[in-house]
Amino acid sequence: MTDQQLTVGQAGEDAVLAAVREVIDPFNAQRPGLALGPGDDAAALTLGSGQAVITTDTMSEGQDFRRQWWLDPESLGAAEFEPAEEWPQDVGTKAAAQNLSDINAMGAVPTALVVSLTLPPQTTVAWVANFYRGVLRACEAPGAGRCVVAGGDFGAGEAISVTITALGEPAAGGQLLRRDRAEPGDVLAVCGQLGRAAAGLALLERPGEASVSSDELRHWQDHAAIIRECLQAQQQPQPPLNAGPAALAAGASAGLDLSDGLLRDAGRLAAASRVQIRCDDAALAAEAQPLKPVAGILGLGPAAGSEWVLSGGEDYSLLATFPADAPLPDGFRALGTVEPVPADGQPGVLVAAEPSGTGWDSLRQIL
Amino acid sequence: MTDQQLTVGQAGEDAVLAAVREVIDPFNAQRPGLALGPGDDAAALTLGSGQAVITTDTMSEGQDFRRQWWLDPESLGAAEFEPAEEWPQDVGTKAAAQNLSDINAMGAVPTALVVSLTLPPQTTVAWVANFYRGVLRACEAPGAGRCVVAGGDFGAGEAISVTITALGEPAAGGQLLRRDRAEPGDVLAVCGQLGRAAAGLALLERPGEASVSSDELRHWQDHAAIIRECLQAQQQPQPPLNAGPAALAAGASAGLDLSDGLLRDAGRLAAASRVQIRCDDAALAAEAQPLKPVAGILGLGPAAGSEWVLSGGEDYSLLATFPADAPLPDGFRALGTVEPVPADGQPGVLVAAEPSGTGWDSLRQIL
Repeated sequence: MTDQQLTVGQAGEDAVLAAVREVIDPFNAQRPGLALGPGDDAAALTLGSGQAVITTDTMSEGQDFRRQWWLDPESLGAAEFEPAEEWPQDVGTKAAAQNLSDINAMGAVPTALVVSLTLPPQTTVAWVANFYRGVLRACEAPGAGRCVVAGGDFGAGEAISVTITALGEPAAGGQLLRRDRAEPGDVLAVCGQLGRAAAGLALLERPGEASVSSDELRHWQDHAAIIRECLQAQQQPQPPLNAGPAALAAGASAGLDLSDGLLRDAGRLAAASRVQIRCDDAALAAEAQPLKPVAGILGLGPAAGSEWVLSGGEDYSLLATFPADAPLPDGFRALGTVEPVPADGQPGVLVAAEPSGTGWDSLRQIL
Repeated sequence: MTDQQLTVGQAGEDAVLAAVREVIDPFNAQRPGLALGPGDDAAALTLGSGQAVITTDTMSEGQDFRRQWWLDPESLGAAEFEPAEEWPQDVGTKAAAQNLSDINAMGAVPTALVVSLTLPPQTTVAWVANFYRGVLRACEAPGAGRCVVAGGDFGAGEAISVTITALGEPAAGGQLLRRDRAEPGDVLAVCGQLGRAAAGLALLERPGEASVSSDELRHWQDHAAIIRECLQAQQQPQPPLNAGPAALAAGASAGLDLSDGLLRDAGRLAAASRVQIRCDDAALAAEAQPLKPVAGILGLGPAAGSEWVLSGGEDYSLLATFPADAPLPDGFRALGTVEPVPADGQPGVLVAAEPSGTGWDSLRQIL
């Protein structure tokens, strides 16, 4: 049981959720409407004759995004990088995408978003309109073609804060991609990028001058493709929204989306399923390889790429486990295997070399 | 069209919503999932074979609530007023109640809440658990017996912020209590209190010493019942959650909930329905009468009671219009009549004496 006098910063997100479940689980058990309660990427509700999945997520300025990134795109060649007017759109796209990703991670199809915006009164109307354009952009991605934006609420506050709630429709028959159903012998696979969003954040927040020297600029432009990929991953994430339904259709046993880093999220899947997950080190090294030039630009050693792949958050890729004889759907790459927990062991993730970080805990990390 | 370079504080909530609708309405028009778009208390979605109504609302610390009110209950006799340990529960109850009220205002029955909490890391786990106890308390009210609490998300921020999204099930046949269907000849009626929440806020924020003199204490205790009613209205609102479905069943033509004050919200109903609403001054005076002792305690004149009734926000009562020959359901009191807009007039609300305020605009009022 979580010590009630701990602060949430000391306890961490998983322990706070456990304390909340002690309060709400007995209440929900008396009512028939909750088909799958808290603890997965989204909850499932019994609605009329069918089911809906529902998830909600808040992004706060300063904590989850900045209105202006320190990186000045002008100094890097306007044609290559994103102009500043598009930043409010990015906030909308990212807030929507991370909720759409949670619906995808249940194997469901998104049907609606509602938006609650907290705004400092000096925010312009143009900012708000552009923010909503970004929300719509996320809903134009493949897999989100049925999703409407049902509007929402405005409130005032000192910093911009965005909460989006997403609803989705489960696959026919109400089948859900849960995180607690992986079996020994399964293959662990991912659809979508690994480590790109964390590398993008490192680029956006790199110390130094806002403008870069001509030498540096040449180096940036030599690696423009991977740099742009990383910046887009951080600023305009595009979760693979067809991957969840495709994984379910291919017989996936379990899955979740990568919001807090591969090691941390794979660890959650392992804990929920009571298994061990052994990562394939060669596969992870191949994922990290393209990030080496980014580490070089930032003056970091080659281990930085592996660290981003293993512990970087906000990739919104889909991690899933499949029976060994199931062909992986398009876009999935094998990353490892699921094993039983040894008699003297615990559920968890096994990698060749432990990195220094273990992911992103949204409550603990700002202490 | 709203000037895009205005700040949201200058433009106000209704103009910001109009600017957002210019962006999202054309998008939603291409997709079949939105049965009723933004602009009412909740949106209606087509989900599988049925419909759901959905609404979302954020409460921010400092703006919508305080973790500790200036009023010290200890100084007023602990037996009479609420002890401080219950404040986190109140935040949960109020955040849930205002969303449940929006579902009620559509004539629908609430089925699920999801919660997103932004927390400073020094918040205790106990605060979070008590907050959730308050959410559950709101779901134990009559009319909310089917509502589950599907959990949600935690994030970090500098101040506590709470976003709740509520889902509801429309009445059989998908009928909704919209705000744009009032007809000349209808009776305007309310179910639930008027002005109590605003009077409670005035009590909680009254200037002066935290402790009161023995003379003052006697005066407070003489009027303990109405004081407690006002404090509860502000801190633990109890919207009449059966009133929306009851109004629909009784043939109500239109309705909304009173979150921003009677004049402002009745004005929204009048504008949406393109009618004028003439208030019955004697009925309003009767609503204000019990608030006179509260005005007296605060050193305000008798007009303060009328002002709270006309312009006080956060009552979460249900305002509805009924055909003149429909008997009002239990708990509804007639407040006025609906009239056509004269040839030289505009939609709006007619009262005998214009008060100084016209309600609470959550974007404009903090300037």
